[in-house]
Amino acid sequence: MPRPSLQISGLTGSGDDGWSLFYRARAMKAAGQPVLELTIGEHDIGTDQAILDEMHRAATAGHTGYAMVPGIPSLRRAVAERMSAATGHPYDIENILITPGGQAGLFAAHHAACDPGDRALLIDPYYATYPGTIRAVGAIPVPVATRPEAGFQPEEAALTAAAPGAKSLLINSPNNPTGAVYGMETLRGIARVAEAHDLWVISDEVYDSQVWEGRHVPFAALPGMADRTLTVGSLSKSHAMTGSRLGWIAAPAEVIERLITLATHTTYGVPGYIQEAGLFALTRGPEAEAAVAAPFLRRRQMVLERLDRQQVLSAVPPSGAMYVMLDVRRTGLSGAAFADALLDECRVAVMPGESFGTAAAGHVRVALTLPDDRFAEALDRLFQFATARACAA
Amino acid sequence: MPRPSLQISGLTGSGDDGWSLFYRARAMKAAGQPVLELTIGEHDIGTDQAILDEMHRAATAGHTGYAMVPGIPSLRRAVAERMSAATGHPYDIENILITPGGQAGLFAAHHAACDPGDRALLIDPYYATYPGTIRAVGAIPVPVATRPEAGFQPEEAALTAAAPGAKSLLINSPNNPTGAVYGMETLRGIARVAEAHDLWVISDEVYDSQVWEGRHVPFAALPGMADRTLTVGSLSKSHAMTGSRLGWIAAPAEVIERLITLATHTTYGVPGYIQEAGLFALTRGPEAEAAVAAPFLRRRQMVLERLDRQQVLSAVPPSGAMYVMLDVRRTGLSGAAFADALLDECRVAVMPGESFGTAAAGHVRVALTLPDDRFAEALDRLFQFATARACAA
Repeated sequence: MPRPSLQISGLTGSGDDGWSLFYRARAMKAAGQPVLELTIGEHDIGTDQAILDEMHRAATAGHTGYAMVPGIPSLRRAVAERMSAATGHPYDIENILITPGGQAGLFAAHHAACDPGDRALLIDPYYATYPGTIRAVGAIPVPVATRPEAGFQPEEAALTAAAPGAKSLLINSPNNPTGAVYGMETLRGIARVAEAHDLWVISDEVYDSQVWEGRHVPFAALPGMADRTLTVGSLSKSHAMTGSRLGWIAAPAEVIERLITLATHTTYGVPGYIQEAGLFALTRGPEAEAAVAAPFLRRRQMVLERLDRQQVLSAVPPSGAMYVMLDVRRTGLSGAAFADALLDECRVAVMPGESFGTAAAGHVRVALTLPDDRFAEALDRLFQFATARACAA
Repeated sequence: MPRPSLQISGLTGSGDDGWSLFYRARAMKAAGQPVLELTIGEHDIGTDQAILDEMHRAATAGHTGYAMVPGIPSLRRAVAERMSAATGHPYDIENILITPGGQAGLFAAHHAACDPGDRALLIDPYYATYPGTIRAVGAIPVPVATRPEAGFQPEEAALTAAAPGAKSLLINSPNNPTGAVYGMETLRGIARVAEAHDLWVISDEVYDSQVWEGRHVPFAALPGMADRTLTVGSLSKSHAMTGSRLGWIAAPAEVIERLITLATHTTYGVPGYIQEAGLFALTRGPEAEAAVAAPFLRRRQMVLERLDRQQVLSAVPPSGAMYVMLDVRRTGLSGAAFADALLDECRVAVMPGESFGTAAAGHVRVALTLPDDRFAEALDRLFQFATARACAA
């Protein structure tokens, strides 16, 4: 066997990226063990049947050939209208590329912004794929730490320190894993740094329909920012369509034109019948998105109530998204050790904070993704485990 | 707007890549003009209803969440069994990665083989996306010309001349656009060069179910070659599932492991319900594939019969795939000029040979992708046009 490329061999960093716990939990489940899984951002409901029926209708009507690589015009237009309404900036069809999911959008956006060897900033804690996504285009991930004491909001001083020589900054609000929703002052600070250092801002806004406190402001809504922003969106979280792999990039037309060429060579488009289903989902309006989001708000409350009743675990209450980051440091355990022991002893799987960068060490991420009764059971086991560990420590 | 990356700006070469004619034909059709289109490899039939029904069944049964990134085990196993049967080499589930289409497989395979600046060989004439796919991973496409007089078979001497310092060789049999099916002597010559220069061989075999003369031998079937071969397959052509974007890479397990990490960061898997539909399609057996292929053999015959009745156009009869390359040089026109004039004067769209590299200059590619009656009409216009041009020349 010849040697594989260095670039594919170096995709992941040297540390454990947290997927090992996820795969271990899945293997235990597959072996018949009753693991309660609160790991990935996967709804406990499936895609709405009406959306699936629309998909079948479109396929049966003959939309089974190659769709145009940029996406079907009707869906591009619907996304453009959504972006225009959310930002107050005019988006048109040539500002939108439909992608096979948000992850493909993140990869393509970094491809458009960075050359091999370029520095690409990201906010720590971060979604587990971010560093590898940056490495996949040959760029160098540079985490910028946030602090629990600052509500995990990116701080201008830290950004300014990291920005010299960087090409891009990846932000994510509402944030996975912390639940932070960036406030106006945070956003203005990011805008000042982006302008001063001529950065592309890659704004992952896939949780925009899940906001519990404050409101979501798209980064491209800030004055002058639309021209340097690549916004990544998706129907995965808002419409429980994770498995359908349907997302988009909204960006300046000159960039979208290049991204279409990239898509021609990396994916050659997205199934037309899935795009028709996505169009149908988008046109159902905000009520449908609120209905998908509602259980996460309810379960967030279940976590906060339990936090109030004890002293071991603590959290910055999440303002959005479908997770709670629990600070487990008073148990005397690292996030990874806590998650490992919790899985082994209590059959509850959560993600170690260390999977999300150094700033989330000593935390675990709890996904709000089990039906309420089983979620309550998982929480009870988790809090009992934490209390017992804290007493033993 | 900051400057986009050099790598995305340099995806396409300096020349016209032929898509302009395709888009012009599409625009004319959209404007209501009766263009007969013989451009891209798109069946004139849709995906079989039974496959679509199985997809809907799987989705409705709840397979709408994230599928495992490497692909669902049942489909990986089915592809492994297909590869084992075709090559005589043992393939197992860990040798298979399911990809969102063959194009995504070509991109990922080059990512695994080449680093930025590496030389990546490809056979000229080539499918239009090949050079850009190689550039998308930062590598340098190096075409190796074939000759009509040699039946467009890659020749060992030409490969040997180009191989020093190269990392990979992309081959494609049955070939798009020439229809060449590589014979055993060709394949053995490629194997000798690959071994001598320690090349990865990326073998695009998406037309393996469409063979009219001779037989398809997977490159990995050659002694010792499976360890250096990344085979790209797809259900697009064999099962008329172009729009579903479902393909795979079969390769050594160590490479697949890395490719799974790449997929985690570029696409995050393929819709599970599409994979279930693909599994259903694969298990329908070779008769279903033969039924999809049959019209192309029939239409190939229609072209050959017309060629026999005149002296202007000529062709190497295609041994496989869904195209005929017509040599138009006796009209006095380049392939591009012929295609342009044919579209303007006769409303028939074919691809200029120049889109497929320098070795196909003076040719046009005719896709066998219209129902027989309209295909006959398009051919009649094309042959009349050629004769008139040759007389005027």
